[in-house]
Amino acid sequence: MAGSRYAYVRDFELADVALPRTFLVVRIDGKGFHKFSHQHGFSKPNDANALELMNEAARHVMREFKGHITLAFGESDEYSFLIDRDSGLYNRRQSKLISHIVSLFTSAYVFAWRRYMDVSLQYPPSFDGRLVMYPTHKEVRDYFAWRQADTHINNLYNTVFWALVLQGGKSEREAHDTLKGTVSAEKHEIMFQQFGINYDKLPAFFRKGTTLVWSPIPDPHRAKPRTELRTLHVDIIGDTFWTPHSEKQPPAAADEVAPYYDNPKRLCGEGLGSHLGL
Amino acid sequence: MAGSRYAYVRDFELADVALPRTFLVVRIDGKGFHKFSHQHGFSKPNDANALELMNEAARHVMREFKGHITLAFGESDEYSFLIDRDSGLYNRRQSKLISHIVSLFTSAYVFAWRRYMDVSLQYPPSFDGRLVMYPTHKEVRDYFAWRQADTHINNLYNTVFWALVLQGGKSEREAHDTLKGTVSAEKHEIMFQQFGINYDKLPAFFRKGTTLVWSPIPDPHRAKPRTELRTLHVDIIGDTFWTPHSEKQPPAAADEVAPYYDNPKRLCGEGLGSHLGL
Amino acid sequence: MAGSRYAYVRDFELADVALPRTFLVVRIDGKGFHKFSHQHGFSKPNDANALELMNEAARHVMREFKGHITLAFGESDEYSFLIDRDSGLYNRRQSKLISHIVSLFTSAYVFAWRRYMDVSLQYPPSFDGRLVMYPTHKEVRDYFAWRQADTHINNLYNTVFWALVLQGGKSEREAHDTLKGTVSAEKHEIMFQQFGINYDKLPAFFRKGTTLVWSPIPDPHRAKPRTELRTLHVDIIGDTFWTPHSEKQPPAAADEVAPYYDNPKRLCGEGLGSHLGL
Amino acid sequence: MAGSRYAYVRDFELADVALPRTFLVVRIDGKGFHKFSHQHGFSKPNDANALELMNEAARHVMREFKGHITLAFGESDEYSFLIDRDSGLYNRRQSKLISHIVSLFTSAYVFAWRRYMDVSLQYPPSFDGRLVMYPTHKEVRDYFAWRQADTHINNLYNTVFWALVLQGGKSEREAHDTLKGTVSAEKHEIMFQQFGINYDKLPAFFRKGTTLVWSPIPDPHRAKPRTELRTLHVDIIGDTFWTPHSEKQPPAAADEVAPYYDNPKRLCGEGLGSHLGL
Repeated sequence: MAGSRYAYVRDFELADVALPRTFLVVRIDGKGFHKFSHQHGFSKPNDANALELMNEAARHVMREFKGHITLAFGESDEYSFLIDRDSGLYNRRQSKLISHIVSLFTSAYVFAWRRYMDVSLQYPPSFDGRLVMYPTHKEVRDYFAWRQADTHINNLYNTVFWALVLQGGKSEREAHDTLKGTVSAEKHEIMFQQFGINYDKLPAFFRKGTTLVWSPIPDPHRAKPRTELRTLHVDIIGDTFWTPHSEKQPPAAADEVAPYYDNPKRLCGEGLGSHLGL
Repeated sequence: MAGSRYAYVRDFELADVALPRTFLVVRIDGKGFHKFSHQHGFSKPNDANALELMNEAARHVMREFKGHITLAFGESDEYSFLIDRDSGLYNRRQSKLISHIVSLFTSAYVFAWRRYMDVSLQYPPSFDGRLVMYPTHKEVRDYFAWRQADTHINNLYNTVFWALVLQGGKSEREAHDTLKGTVSAEKHEIMFQQFGINYDKLPAFFRKGTTLVWSPIPDPHRAKPRTELRTLHVDIIGDTFWTPHSEKQPPAAADEVAPYYDNPKRLCGEGLGSHLGL
Repeated sequence: MAGSRYAYVRDFELADVALPRTFLVVRIDGKGFHKFSHQHGFSKPNDANALELMNEAARHVMREFKGHITLAFGESDEYSFLIDRDSGLYNRRQSKLISHIVSLFTSAYVFAWRRYMDVSLQYPPSFDGRLVMYPTHKEVRDYFAWRQADTHINNLYNTVFWALVLQGGKSEREAHDTLKGTVSAEKHEIMFQQFGINYDKLPAFFRKGTTLVWSPIPDPHRAKPRTELRTLHVDIIGDTFWTPHSEKQPPAAADEVAPYYDNPKRLCGEGLGSHLGL
Repeated sequence: MAGSRYAYVRDFELADVALPRTFLVVRIDGKGFHKFSHQHGFSKPNDANALELMNEAARHVMREFKGHITLAFGESDEYSFLIDRDSGLYNRRQSKLISHIVSLFTSAYVFAWRRYMDVSLQYPPSFDGRLVMYPTHKEVRDYFAWRQADTHINNLYNTVFWALVLQGGKSEREAHDTLKGTVSAEKHEIMFQQFGINYDKLPAFFRKGTTLVWSPIPDPHRAKPRTELRTLHVDIIGDTFWTPHSEKQPPAAADEVAPYYDNPKRLCGEGLGSHLGL
């Protein structure tokens, strides 16, 4: 065959298999999103539509990899996906996992742009990705706690910063200088005293980021429950999300379950993470 | 800081730096493009518009990484990008290089879809990627020869296959059976005898794939020449593409250079690869 | 400095850090020990002195890496060392860990040769090594179970094989043919019927291999107990080795503890593995 | 089989193949040799016997891997081995290559101790190792230049340091303080003025380190020449070692070749490196 004497170049493809039985986290990050969000007029400090577009792109990834990706968490221009420790997706080849997840996310982001955004997309946005292996449950929970703590820190800063600029009439430099060295309590106070903002009453969407999780739907007629993809804005640092439902409050029968947006328990994500086997 | 006690999870990010001074090739491949091309009615055996869209996405990647990616070659639903051995892009972190290139390509593909295709995009397409390191010039040339030889083999097969189906009225199974075990000369003969197709006269675009290369534009007024991105459909297996211009035919002065589509020498890509330092 | 313009070559040293919080197992294997054991007249099927020399070399490794290597298991010409998941030895650089452990073992083997062996060492023996990461307790226990099960299989075969040859007067080829396809029970029967050997009464040293473990020595006068290195020939597949002492039989006070060779419980290794945090 | 349900633990052994067609350098370093050399009374600044023992251990490695390791360079308690770019030794598995080379070296060092050293070996010495891949000739030459430049710097310092201590009666601290901040010329001057030492007249063994190389022996009766392992103390930074013999001075016929210690050309290593294909 004509190509065969060149085919030796394939021998240079080195294996990059992820260690078996480790949890894999793929985190994607927007490239140049400071400029991108500026050029597309994103609202400050948070653009709800742009964040919903991120969530939609992430849901696309989760649906494509159902049974492999069990949890995702997003904030700002980043999203983290948890691949189950027993997943054999792509034989755990790291470059395949990273690249395909980033590609699916990017593709869905551009594809769904017009459904979420009013302005036209001016140029193709892009993301990069990395993969991290975690050996045990503890590190996985701490990873997601790390990202949500980061959400809190960044969102608190951004909220008071843009209040100073947009409502307080300060320049961006003045706002930075005002906030330099302030601790959390001082930022809360500036918002409340100067702008009447009670930070803790702001939408959980912005304060808690978005958690995507496959949730079992109890169905007495099926041995293996169906699952649905839930979009939550809840605390995932504490135990509530990760602890199974209390015995005393058995889950409602399938036909009695209120939609999650009407169901206070589900809104808080109680126990949904307990199905992840962490 | 609230997040600091979780930040240890970053220590699990292992280095994945590519070996210095190696040439890096990132190859991306369409995921599920058999189904994708069917659902979007791609012409068989080749859809020129869909291939031009691939080229446009690849040019976007090359422009974003100008000075780092020096050459690209595409065929069907795959594209290979050559990163210069001295490039320090992303400090040569493999996961970053793979993921960002795949993301840029995907994004541009979806973004530019409507400029190239008549039908609407029905769902987000995706790609995956891999990275290979090559120590010397020889393997790089052989890598691209391998891909272009593959183009030849696949396109020859596909051309006669679809002639049998679309013009010959055979079922796909019958066409496969007809071609089973045939060598190259027999395929040429089937095309010529039964359908009057002279394979070697078909567009080089389909037979040779697409080569993208930054080409210097001579300019007596500048020490460092400007470059432009060329889109070629030429042989890159032989020496012509890789060998500098003959001394006897000095390059024309800048203002005398015909556009490459009028310039036979440039159409054959003569010497353009000689600037890659291979 | 004269050397500085060459120092860039250090940049080619790529990181090879083991994933944090994984258990590391380094296994070393004799190179060409079939020939080596023949040339040095090792007794068949087991040479107790040669095995004790292996154990001595392994104890040297464990003493050098006390606090890092917590368990070792050896059989025939191989030894496996367990590095604690929290060890930061050599910053977990894999090549350093492998090479230094192999070097220490080799050095001690040659150094101690004359204390254990009657014949002179005729040429330098050598070993190679590999490192494997295990994320959880389960895989670590299964790894050591795998090696001990292997010990059982090999030793059973070798014992009956050499009985056939040395006592039964068969050639090695005849002995192989006799054993071909026999299951475990048949091998036991051949030994018992033809040679009066009750396999289960043979020394545990040969049947169980050697387990090295740091064992705490209770001492009411010290907050942190001293430890001593134990050399055991016990079952490490079942739970006994890994389960803490029963509550009903509290450990004896330090001054009442019999030496382990007089203490049936300690001879069976009961609970010694429970200190490894697996 | 009893062991089979545990055998899955082998799946955790990840590939660590070195990139094809790269030159591999394995460098080994003595562990704790400051203390080791002190306890065994090594002469200062250089112990010729101890260095010869290092060389003997390295020759053992080169003989074991003849056809794979083509060059070695040693100084002080370190040795570097060059594995040919086309070697498929151990299928280029890095951990195997590192560990076996370190083990062979260590074993030979302990084994040959008594032939070279007067004092008894008091405890097992050890080494560690690392492996580096180099894509081209240039980096390989620069790697060995780097090590020999290091030899020069260290030996110059050590020679004047121990002259100050042993002949000049200074304490080690005083000697360090004297040399602090001195450049090369000043060190030469101290040696010459105070101790009458002409550094450039000291044995090349100490100043140049030791280079081991397989050298072809011309033999008109054989198509493929035999080779012998040469032990050289020559400059390998400049071109002489690496450049083929001049045409004007054809190599002597085999039976006329003087032993290398009588042959000035061979003493300078002229052209011996030219057979390495660098």
